[in-house]
Amino acid sequence: MYLFLDKNWLSHYRKMKARSEADKMSESNSVLVGNKPVMNYVLACITLFHGGAKEVNVKARGRSISRAVDIVEVVRRRFLPDTKVKRVGIGTQQMAPREEGGSPTNVSTIEITLER
Amino acid sequence: MYLFLDKNWLSHYRKMKARSEADKMSESNSVLVGNKPVMNYVLACITLFHGGAKEVNVKARGRSISRAVDIVEVVRRRFLPDTKVKRVGIGTQQMAPREEGGSPTNVSTIEITLER
Repeated sequence: MYLFLDKNWLSHYRKMKARSEADKMSESNSVLVGNKPVMNYVLACITLFHGGAKEVNVKARGRSISRAVDIVEVVRRRFLPDTKVKRVGIGTQQMAPREEGGSPTNVSTIEITLER
Repeated sequence: MYLFLDKNWLSHYRKMKARSEADKMSESNSVLVGNKPVMNYVLACITLFHGGAKEVNVKARGRSISRAVDIVEVVRRRFLPDTKVKRVGIGTQQMAPREEGGSPTNVSTIEITLER
């Protein structure tokens, strides 16, 4: 009985993992910048280019925007000098209010496209 | 004697002030983003456009980069909907080492050109 439950859990886990990998595939050329160190995202960009990508989108919002610029500069100046910035787009994203009846807040976004 | 020194100082001060204002004139369509609140820089942009400027450059470096994006988004979405982003440029600036013998550090920069 224990084994049976365990197998179920494992198949569920595998399905979840496959799905999240499929999600990644559809967004395979995007790097979403969060709060991790710059080098983590630099490595992600380099991995995508080494995997054959012609373009990589670095996306960030709010305070991570300056980190996104750092990442792109490190990639193209230190690691992959044959890449260049194709496009830089800025915009605003509306976030749902935090509590009921609150007003929606705006957050700035950036999307930098690197190509080689 | 005291008066004489004082006059000298004043003329020096006036010369300095005139020079820094001349510097500002040559860079009159630039807004350099620092650590002040976003609205200060938004007001600076609006003042430049109301003074007849066709283009305004918003420049920032390091962690102020995300604030620069906020400023541009507030100007064009809330206050001057007839302006649009003409160009976004990113780059790296090398800073002198802080102490003797230290290695130079790099800082990311952004320059956003708004036009109406």
